[in-house]
Amino acid sequence: MNQVVIEKKVLSENDRIATQLRQSLTSAGTLSLNFIGSPGAGKTALLERTLERLPRHTRAAVLTGDIQTENDAIRLQRYGYPVRQITTGGCCHLDARMIEAHLNGWFDLSAPPERGVVRDHENELELLLIENVGNLVCPTSYDLGEDAKVVVLSVAEGEDKPLKYPGIFRKSELMILNKVDLLPHVPFKPELARENARRIHPEIEIIETSCTTGAGFDRWMKWLDARAGRKKAEVMMTLATHPI
Amino acid sequence: MNQVVIEKKVLSENDRIATQLRQSLTSAGTLSLNFIGSPGAGKTALLERTLERLPRHTRAAVLTGDIQTENDAIRLQRYGYPVRQITTGGCCHLDARMIEAHLNGWFDLSAPPERGVVRDHENELELLLIENVGNLVCPTSYDLGEDAKVVVLSVAEGEDKPLKYPGIFRKSELMILNKVDLLPHVPFKPELARENARRIHPEIEIIETSCTTGAGFDRWMKWLDARAGRKKAEVMMTLATHPI
Repeated sequence: MNQVVIEKKVLSENDRIATQLRQSLTSAGTLSLNFIGSPGAGKTALLERTLERLPRHTRAAVLTGDIQTENDAIRLQRYGYPVRQITTGGCCHLDARMIEAHLNGWFDLSAPPERGVVRDHENELELLLIENVGNLVCPTSYDLGEDAKVVVLSVAEGEDKPLKYPGIFRKSELMILNKVDLLPHVPFKPELARENARRIHPEIEIIETSCTTGAGFDRWMKWLDARAGRKKAEVMMTLATHPI
Repeated sequence: MNQVVIEKKVLSENDRIATQLRQSLTSAGTLSLNFIGSPGAGKTALLERTLERLPRHTRAAVLTGDIQTENDAIRLQRYGYPVRQITTGGCCHLDARMIEAHLNGWFDLSAPPERGVVRDHENELELLLIENVGNLVCPTSYDLGEDAKVVVLSVAEGEDKPLKYPGIFRKSELMILNKVDLLPHVPFKPELARENARRIHPEIEIIETSCTTGAGFDRWMKWLDARAGRKKAEVMMTLATHPI
């Protein structure tokens, strides 16, 4: 069996697990987002500021992936939400099996939803934030059962990143253009970055943020709230159409 | 055959080609460097400023890798040195076969060296700069037949990158800490980054640069000159010890 065949098998096995995960997360009414970006794009800082601003009653949790160290989990645990580190030990991406293994026994995603209603129990999860390994390439191919991928690009990188790494921009529902506080000090042209992102993916949504100044966070938190609302409505619709 | 076995086979095939490449480059007296860093670390800008400052008589060439686009080659071609783009079409790293295929017919690396002397002909190459795909993880595993890996880290990333991506810091002879002009505007502590890099690789050399202000370039160009001199001396020594 050659490498391409093996890679296809690995991906199809990943897709099988991701599909199960998506069903479980959906039946639990959980919105799950997969954050992908280069090392240093500011994914962890974005999640820190997000946890700080979430309404306190939100049942949120974070899975954060890294090749080595528990640094990100330690940073994220300060905000009072459950956080688990996935240390990949050299692997350049998260896969669905890692997500399944780390959710197992942590949240109850296995029980079927009650007939015709979205479950809303205290031990269930409304929002699962997954921080992928810092890498704009490999995580793109691995479905984690998430509702949406969010690509994080920093203005300290180049405006041509959407053209050079088209896969992730094509697959992401949202691009967070981060570190906009640095704009006066770098040659980055946000308009060109937007244009490049839309050349690759015309429907991509774009929000500019700074984790230092808080710029853009009102818009981002509204997006998150609306996306969670949309997910709930979809689940309600599915349950109404296909009652269990 | 499982995935691990296949990966080992791919890497050992890569190592075989890399070993041949290293022999050819060495017998031609070429110093070759493999630049690895995140997307946006400033690898292309570093090479642009380097080509600008090379003594005009230097016989240098650049191979630049990207998943898509020829943008980097277009940027680098302005400096009067031969440049070839390697577009990997989705692959997250360069491998030795890509280098071999792109050097083939471009420079004559096949002729054996003359007995006891380092060749120094006009159509031979003194310096080969290889810009890898923007990725701190996967390019680490692929030997390209280079003399040294150089990791490029930007101060817009985090100081903990050496701990989170230890492989590349362990394998690099030099760390370029780039974009130091941004230091007044970011929370990055260079001392901590140096300390982290040396925890992973105590002998790593470190040079701080800014491609905007030119800071650190005198030191970097001296490093490059000394490294090329050291390579020539090694080749002379090998030829003296094992005359052909």
